Amino acid sequence: MRYEIIKELEGLVGPGRASYAPEDLAAYSYDAYTEECRPDIVLFPVSTDEVSAVMKTAYRETIPVTARGSGTNLAGESVPVRGGIAMCLTRMDKILSIDSQNLTATVQPGVVNMDLQQAAGKAGMMYPPDPASWAVATMGGTVGTNAGGPRTLKYGVTKDYLLGLTVVLADGAILQTGGRTIKNVTGYNLNGLFCGSEGTLGIFTQITVRLIPKPQAERTIRADFANLEDCSDAVSAIMASGIVPAALELMNRFAIRAVEKSFGLGLPVDMDGILLIQVDGNPTTLAGEVGHIERILRDTGAVNIITAEDPPDAERLWTARRYAGPALMRLRPNTITEDVTVPVSNLTAMIRKVVEICERHRIQVGVLAHAGDGNLHPCMVFDRRDEDEFKRVRMVCEDLVPEALALGGTLSGEHGIGIAKAPFLKLEMDPVALRVMQGIKDYFDPKGILNPGKFV
Amino acid sequence: MRYEIIKELEGLVGPGRASYAPEDLAAYSYDAYTEECRPDIVLFPVSTDEVSAVMKTAYRETIPVTARGSGTNLAGESVPVRGGIAMCLTRMDKILSIDSQNLTATVQPGVVNMDLQQAAGKAGMMYPPDPASWAVATMGGTVGTNAGGPRTLKYGVTKDYLLGLTVVLADGAILQTGGRTIKNVTGYNLNGLFCGSEGTLGIFTQITVRLIPKPQAERTIRADFANLEDCSDAVSAIMASGIVPAALELMNRFAIRAVEKSFGLGLPVDMDGILLIQVDGNPTTLAGEVGHIERILRDTGAVNIITAEDPPDAERLWTARRYAGPALMRLRPNTITEDVTVPVSNLTAMIRKVVEICERHRIQVGVLAHAGDGNLHPCMVFDRRDEDEFKRVRMVCEDLVPEALALGGTLSGEHGIGIAKAPFLKLEMDPVALRVMQGIKDYFDPKGILNPGKFV
Repeated sequence: MRYEIIKELEGLVGPGRASYAPEDLAAYSYDAYTEECRPDIVLFPVSTDEVSAVMKTAYRETIPVTARGSGTNLAGESVPVRGGIAMCLTRMDKILSIDSQNLTATVQPGVVNMDLQQAAGKAGMMYPPDPASWAVATMGGTVGTNAGGPRTLKYGVTKDYLLGLTVVLADGAILQTGGRTIKNVTGYNLNGLFCGSEGTLGIFTQITVRLIPKPQAERTIRADFANLEDCSDAVSAIMASGIVPAALELMNRFAIRAVEKSFGLGLPVDMDGILLIQVDGNPTTLAGEVGHIERILRDTGAVNIITAEDPPDAERLWTARRYAGPALMRLRPNTITEDVTVPVSNLTAMIRKVVEICERHRIQVGVLAHAGDGNLHPCMVFDRRDEDEFKRVRMVCEDLVPEALALGGTLSGEHGIGIAKAPFLKLEMDPVALRVMQGIKDYFDPKGILNPGKFV
Repeated sequence: MRYEIIKELEGLVGPGRASYAPEDLAAYSYDAYTEECRPDIVLFPVSTDEVSAVMKTAYRETIPVTARGSGTNLAGESVPVRGGIAMCLTRMDKILSIDSQNLTATVQPGVVNMDLQQAAGKAGMMYPPDPASWAVATMGGTVGTNAGGPRTLKYGVTKDYLLGLTVVLADGAILQTGGRTIKNVTGYNLNGLFCGSEGTLGIFTQITVRLIPKPQAERTIRADFANLEDCSDAVSAIMASGIVPAALELMNRFAIRAVEKSFGLGLPVDMDGILLIQVDGNPTTLAGEVGHIERILRDTGAVNIITAEDPPDAERLWTARRYAGPALMRLRPNTITEDVTVPVSNLTAMIRKVVEICERHRIQVGVLAHAGDGNLHPCMVFDRRDEDEFKRVRMVCEDLVPEALALGGTLSGEHGIGIAKAPFLKLEMDPVALRVMQGIKDYFDPKGILNPGKFV
């Protein structure tokens, strides 16, 4: 990037909010995926107008711009593969309003999901989308990836809560979409199009979401299975029972042992799989639902069932799931978390395939799953420096996708496409769909400066 | 339209499924809005391939194509204002699958909402979107308009249940969007973009939707208010209570009297407004919720509260709401049902404005509202042949929109834009938003043949 452009950009955001120091360029060269690529400059805008001004220069000079928040995304969405500007929105971190009469919240893109959760909670409400990275992930990123999480089984994903956006377009124009009402069919559903667009269509600078009343109570159950197939059969049985749990999570033996090794929570290391189930709602109803689920678990072969007595007890049970990712990351230098998703009736078949494929390529895998909606997160642990092992990991990824598609699934349930899944897109989407996506991209980004080198 | 083109189109759909008889052209020249315009030919395709073949010819010859189902839409979306082809999809009426393991259904666009409701119900599931026209409205139309309904207060609108589409594009190409999994972030969210696009981007020939477990029980409450403001204050109080009713409907005195006049259901004609409230879920919980809501209703000034003892009893209470539209239509030759929507905290203010504006222009109005989500349906009754009265009705529509926007609302909550709201679009959407919508339209429909003359 030319020196005078660097200086111009620096001037647009003001002192202390632009950097081209090597350590910053390195710090913003990666996300939670395995690839790295350095931007030429990192900018920290604090307003829609600053973002707009930066985009006007980037558009004029045809400079790539990769928007990012905390970089917890798992498919390389925020890696600036063509260099240029890393636009970091973490300093736009204000919660602008929590409206308990209309059950809405308006936030800047850098607000952390957990902070919104807590602010909503204080007002007796809940913002359902809860990605595993909720304590770090920014709202801008969760809208950009249409993030899900355990609770989305019952409550739906980010797009189901998005009411309105302020979006800065490629040329710096400022677009308002949607509004503050729950129902709105005025014009095309641009919220729907932008949600999950991974920074390739525009940059979000303000977000209005729907909130819901906070469930009055929650109950958590853990069930241990000696056989992984019984475990996933239990999932299908619960989902067919008419009860919709708030969360229904599965961990396989390898993941259980990883957690034990790092954190010693007293998990049953001799078990093939465990389920963690949360139901929420009215306390009087929950007792009945818990009993019903316990019966299903026994009938499907659970060898041990633990039902939390109180919130701290439930918290202890959930710790196992929350620490699973970190525990797996500690085992080896690198991890790749897959995201294949199948209709829940094919969960058992897909888990079997995951294990089989990983064994074939001699790759260790901790299987975590948002089991209730068929969303698997096989977490492969490896050492990237071992060329052969890394090659085998990539072969696992290549082999997983066709199996998921053959089972009526999709290559990404919630992590997105980014660079990780881009090569596989043509396996799921036909040429017409790819052409349409390209057409939309070309309209919004004629110079190809918005997060270039990604899925489209 | 040239004779040889008529013959070519006739040949594409086969005998008995094309017509240019004056009575058919008349029958397909209007919908539930007030405008009429005759197509040159009406086609009744029965397959995706037939729709594709027709679009190829229409594209080659630049012939307007207006897709439609039962024509229950209220904003003129299916009026073929530029003539050409009326593409009627009511003969593609097969339910292709009801999957109770994965809670999904796949249907052709001509399937009637009620038929899907019943098929899902038999399998212990529910398809939540329930427009008032549910007994007639087709699924294609409900996806095209992103339809809502009373139950969407608790369960969300059509876009929240749409998983996958087969879409025939302007040039006849066939596009598959989404899939069969609940979670899917593979590529742009094209389902989100097509839902509510009112036939201007493509024609749906297959639809996959998410279903939910059928609530185990329902309870219905009617509350009568001597004062309309107390009535809508009760709505805000209920919505702020943490209980989310499945439906929360409001009728004003004029609507109540219209129903009494036509159907004599024994409604309180001296009341300023009534609320109909439905809660659903677990029977044990419902008792508590009913009690809580009854208390709120008493506290907010309800002079009479009736809680249904059993389903037939509840059905009787709902009849009043269901007959309101027909009753109002019987009063005068024409009706226009408005759709302005505001944040629920501004419901009282908006209702006051509706009454005030209609009085100012001497127009009789039955106010029906999906009150819980601030979605008003002021139903104006008039005689179109009375030029002056019709002019005053249009002035009411013009005056309502700015008031709704001033209260943080939108000009359409669920009926759509079509031709009815097109003139007002620029009041809500800024030039950038209008430009973006036009850009999307131009990409999908470069020749402007898909439902031309509508909002974009």
